[in-house]
This record gives sequence, C-alpha cells and structure tokens, in this order.
Amino acid sequence: MQYTSGGVCAAKGFRASGIHCGLRKKKDIKDLALIISDAPANAAGVYTQNLVKGAPLLVSRDHLSGGVAQAIVCNSGNANTCNANGEAIARQMCEIVSEHTGIPAQHVVVASTGVIGKPLPIEPIAQGMPSLVSALSDTGSADAASAIMTTDLRKKEIAVTFELGGNTCHIGGIAKGSGMIHPNMATMLGFLTTDVAISSEMLSRALGADIQDTFNMVSVDGDTSTNDMVVVLANGLSGNAPIVEENADYAIFAAALRMVTEPLSKAIAQDGEGATKLLTCEVEGAQTVEDARAIAKSVICSSLVKTAMFGADANWGRVLCAIGYAGVPVDIGAVDVSFVSSAGSVDVCANGAGIDFSEEIAKAVLSADAVTIRVALHAGAEKATAWGCDLSYDYVKINGDYRT
Amino acid sequence: MQYTSGGVCAAKGFRASGIHCGLRKKKDIKDLALIISDAPANAAGVYTQNLVKGAPLLVSRDHLSGGVAQAIVCNSGNANTCNANGEAIARQMCEIVSEHTGIPAQHVVVASTGVIGKPLPIEPIAQGMPSLVSALSDTGSADAASAIMTTDLRKKEIAVTFELGGNTCHIGGIAKGSGMIHPNMATMLGFLTTDVAISSEMLSRALGADIQDTFNMVSVDGDTSTNDMVVVLANGLSGNAPIVEENADYAIFAAALRMVTEPLSKAIAQDGEGATKLLTCEVEGAQTVEDARAIAKSVICSSLVKTAMFGADANWGRVLCAIGYAGVPVDIGAVDVSFVSSAGSVDVCANGAGIDFSEEIAKAVLSADAVTIRVALHAGAEKATAWGCDLSYDYVKINGDYRT
Repeated sequence: MQYTSGGVCAAKGFRASGIHCGLRKKKDIKDLALIISDAPANAAGVYTQNLVKGAPLLVSRDHLSGGVAQAIVCNSGNANTCNANGEAIARQMCEIVSEHTGIPAQHVVVASTGVIGKPLPIEPIAQGMPSLVSALSDTGSADAASAIMTTDLRKKEIAVTFELGGNTCHIGGIAKGSGMIHPNMATMLGFLTTDVAISSEMLSRALGADIQDTFNMVSVDGDTSTNDMVVVLANGLSGNAPIVEENADYAIFAAALRMVTEPLSKAIAQDGEGATKLLTCEVEGAQTVEDARAIAKSVICSSLVKTAMFGADANWGRVLCAIGYAGVPVDIGAVDVSFVSSAGSVDVCANGAGIDFSEEIAKAVLSADAVTIRVALHAGAEKATAWGCDLSYDYVKINGDYRT
Repeated sequence: MQYTSGGVCAAKGFRASGIHCGLRKKKDIKDLALIISDAPANAAGVYTQNLVKGAPLLVSRDHLSGGVAQAIVCNSGNANTCNANGEAIARQMCEIVSEHTGIPAQHVVVASTGVIGKPLPIEPIAQGMPSLVSALSDTGSADAASAIMTTDLRKKEIAVTFELGGNTCHIGGIAKGSGMIHPNMATMLGFLTTDVAISSEMLSRALGADIQDTFNMVSVDGDTSTNDMVVVLANGLSGNAPIVEENADYAIFAAALRMVTEPLSKAIAQDGEGATKLLTCEVEGAQTVEDARAIAKSVICSSLVKTAMFGADANWGRVLCAIGYAGVPVDIGAVDVSFVSSAGSVDVCANGAGIDFSEEIAKAVLSADAVTIRVALHAGAEKATAWGCDLSYDYVKINGDYRT
C-alpha cells in the first residue's frame, strides 16, 4: 500500500477537468470542475448536519439514493444556497452535464461552494460545459482540484495504490476546505474515486466509519458549513472480487481509504483561512473514543488556544480550560499536557497543575509550522486526534470582507 | 426605579476599595479589591460549569454554602487556578481579610482573575491588606471595579434605586469580562450588593433566573472560563419587610436586579477583547425560550458572523448558517433576518432566501458601534437576546501573547 500520483484520476476509468467558466471574476481562476467514470459506479455520500443545506446537496442526496453515480460536477464562487431557485439551478447543472456526456442526470452528483444567498447564474455553466467535457483527461485531477478551491491557498489531492486478490487497485481524492470548517458527521467538499469493486452499502459503511476519525476531526473556525459533502465513487474496474461484506478485503480497502482521507483532512486544517501553522491535538487515556474525540476537538476549536499557538505562547492553562468545558467527565487532577513539534517537546502540565519548563524551549517548540498538543487523561485506553490551525490576523482580514 | 451612582456602595452599609499590591507589574494598575458589608448579608452565588474550577471558586462555594457572607476579596493578574497550592492560598486570602476586618474567614468570598497555572504569591496580598482595609469607603466602588480588571478597557459598575413598601432600596454591581467569556450557568466575575432584606433562598432563586437572560447570554470568544462567578450580597439595611416568597416585592427586586445585570452583561460584551462594536442578536418567534436562546448564542458566537461584522459586511448567509447549526429544530424556509443600528435598518433575508438590498445602506448600518441582528423564526411566541462583539485583529493580537 503506497502513495501514487493522479489524484481522482489514479483509479482506472476516471477522468477529470477544471476550467474558468466565468462565475469568478479573475480569468485565471478555475471555477468549474468535472469528474466522470467510464462506467457507472457504486457511490456513497455524507452531508452536512447543518439544518441549512445547500440546494446542490439536496439534489446530490436525491441522486445518490440509488447508490449509483457516474459524474461529479462542482463550481466554486457561489454556494447556490438560500436562493429561491437553488434546487432548480442544481438540477439544471446535472442536466447540462447529461446533455454533453450522455450520463443520466440522476447519476450526476452536484456541489457548489462560495458565497451563500446570491442566485447562481446558469449561463456561465451552460456555456462552459462543452470546454469542460472536452478537457476531460486522466491527468485532469489537478485542474479539478484547483477549480473547487475558494480561499484555499493549496490544492488538495492524493492517491494510493494497493492490491486486492492480485488486482492493482487505487483510491484517489481531492478536497477543499479553508473557512466555515467544522464538519459534523459530514464535511467540507471531498471527492473520492476508486476502481475497487465494492457494493454501495459497504462503500457507505466504510465512508461513514472513516470520516469519524478524519474529516469530522477537523476544525478551522467552528462554523459548520451548509454545503459540506464527501462523495466516493467506486467503478469496480480494477477487477477485484466485489466487496460485499466486512471481510479481509474490506479491511484493506478501509485502510487505503484512511491513507487518502487523513492527509486530505490534515491538508484542510493546515490550509485553514489565515493559518500559519497546523495544530494537532492527540488525546490518549480516555474512557471512550467519543470522550477522546470531544476533548481533542474542544482544544482545537478554542479561540484562546488558537491565538496562543499563533503567538507561540505556551499558555497551557487555556488547553486545560478547553478540556474542562468539552462536556465530558474528566478527572482534571490526572491530566498531563505536552507540546511537541519538529523542534522538540516540552511538558507543561502534570496532574492538572503547572510544572516548571523553559520558556525558551517552549517558544522554539511552538514556533514550528506544525505543533502537536498532547493530552494524557489517565482514565482509560481510548484515544483520538483532531486537526486545526491557529487563529491569525489574516483570518480576520479574509473574513472581514469576504463578499466584496 | 431609576439608575443612581455609587456602584457596589450604592446600597446602605457597603464600602469598597481597590489598591495596587504588587501582583501586576505596573504600579498604576490596581490589582486587589475588597467589598464589605457593615452587617452580615444573605448571599448567593453562581459558578462556572467548566470542570476546571479555579481554587478561589471552590473556597467561595464552600463559604457561601451557609447562605451568608460579609466580604468579597478579589485579585487580578493571577487566576490561582491549576496550582497545587491554590486552595490553601485562597483560604489564606480569606484569613488575611478576617485578621484585618474581624469578619469571620468563612464569611469572606474570594475570587481571582488572570493567568492560569502560575502559583499566586500570598505576600503582596498580606502586605497590601492593611492599606486595602483602611481605604474602604462608600465612594470606593470605582477603585474596586478597576482592581478586578484584566484586559478590560472600561470599568463596569452600575446601581439602581427603587422602593419596597416605602423603603428606599438599592442594588449595585461591578463586573469584569474581556476574554475567555462564554458563561455557562454562571459567568465572568460579577459582584452585586443590595440593602434589600431578602432570604438567601429567594436571593439565589432571583439570581439563578436572572443570569439565564443576562450574563449567560454573553459571549466574547466561546471559551468558558475556569473562574466565572457572580455573587450577590443582601444586607437588609434598607428596612424593607424581608422577601421570603415570590410576592410583589420579589417581582420588584427581580426587575431592579435585571436593571443592574443587563447593562453589566452588555458592557462585558462591548468591552470584549479587541472588540470594535457591540453585537446584539434578538431572536423572536421561537417555539421555546430555550430554542431562542440557543439560536441567539449560536449567531453571536460564530467567528464568521463576528468577522463579517468587524468588516461591516452584510454577509447574512453566515447568520443563517449559524442558525442552522444551533442544534434547534427550525424551519429555515420561514426565517427572516434584518440588521439594525442607529444608522437605520436593512432587511437582508426573507423566508430563508436573500432579498435585494442596498449594499450602501447595509454598510452604513453595520458601521455603527452597536449592531443588532434581528432574527424572526415565525414558529412561536418566545424570544431571547444575546450579546457579543466582533472579532478583530486586536483580539488576535491581545491573545497571541497574553502571558509575556
């Protein structure tokens, strides 16, 4: 099992493209992406738990209800959410894809990301579709990954290759994150493709389990978006014996999936709006994994922890404070906290109380571009990891005037 | 019922003082406050729900368990929390007050605010106590209000006068807030005094009900502090017939209490760390008051709403998004949103979808130093109001390097 190139086109029979169709002002910024499979694929999706659900998400959920899809179309620059005509526009997007590809509209997954509450014009999408379709290629993943970005600074794509019963298989993915990132049983946009033969039921189970430890453990700003969605298409072209139960192949598939989703999740955290560093919170010694997750996310989400990390300030009291309001029973008197990075490590709290440490070493540890906050609860054997980023001046700048 | 001067000394028989004892570096910054009543007072307190509880809070809760207190001592510059000797130090603070005032140590309420996890030295407090006690006066409220401030820019004190059965009564209060402000069934520091005769049971009931709509409806940064506490002392010196049940006098007392706590709560929001403006979210038409509160707080706490308000950007989609993840059943298709300030008002969303509005007028409305976000749910008759502030560069600056 190893990483490979190609992103969402690494798996057999997938092609992708990304173009500028005119939804975003600057002509050198791509704003429309397409991913298609040569054959109909089993498919599964997870969606935001926000009561405000983007219109594209409602249409995609409808289209995925049969467990089959063959294309994903996604625009950036406009979320097509909270508009009176949103659902009609989202369905039109699928129909336009259908007209130019022959894929039935109900097998098209549609997604949108950008500003909420501005009607999405269909014309640029209709006019751009012929170019988008003719640009489809098995080297198009990077263009698709670029076209779904909003305030993201780096495109996020990854792929892994592995064997199932002697057949070479692949899972690839692209994602976008940046702001309004605090997924709840779903996530930002993530599009995954695989040539593994797997039933849509098993695919759905694998995805549902995976996101609990990956996309759902990311937070940039505590705001759960209206348009979060992760979709996986499995076209079965690798020739493996179809996975229809939780057998050894399923375990291999789940491990390969994790190799794709975890780096994408970390990349989303690292590229959070205004972020200068990746924060990881590792919680160990919890009574339950749910407790560990709640505490890791509480620490990662604390504005005070995030600003302290921005300032490379070893203000561990804020970590303890965030543990204390995580809503989980904890014996605070047993908690240890350390900061770890490529520059070294420093223990700052033992048994819930401060211990002497070198401010100089702490400053060096926290000045790295990736910092881990390690929390030991000494209450059990469960653990969890969450990813976030620091809170910087640039987060405020980016979001103080996003629309204009 | 009208406002008056004197803060916590407005009520008969209360004196206060505040001095610099040396816990904070700058000599012109007060760091130790004392409030005493000439007579033992019925008392009630509410405390943080954070599992990490400051040592002073544990001692105060113990001392208030009998429902009687006569003094409040509070230092700034150090929270005396997460220190191995915290509780012993907090008890010493009460004993030192007792030595110099004759008030039994168990009738002293103790509070601390500042950095977490640094041992609090008792020497400056012991050495400063004679000056603190000799400075006690009925004009000392402002000094006490100053001495409990940390990163607060403005001191917060208020008092109200009213009649009960022909007797002139008073309620006064001081408070501090600024950062780590997201109270949960308790709050930042608030010290209230009254000369009303009221049983500690009724006092506790009035305070517990009041904070649901006042201190608990404030958020600066979503971080629930370890040291939140609101305490009220009622010494009965106004001569009214003691309030021992929920009668007409209780209703008057509760209304007067609200006149003190609501402005203090708003002042805490307005003076949030780095804040450039006060945000108010008024939610109406909810099915239950709990729903209305949850939605109002969700909007006020959203980093994306807060940054948009900092930038005077009418990005109402973020308001809808925050309503959607408030954890409350809402028919999003029925929601209306408006922005209101001294500069006018602008409707931005009706029936869950955007409506045309003048960006120019919206900019003017949102550029005021106090902005109200009005949300109508059209689902019932309940309502709630929450207060917060915008998220600015200065919040990041203040918290990126708080300790050093």
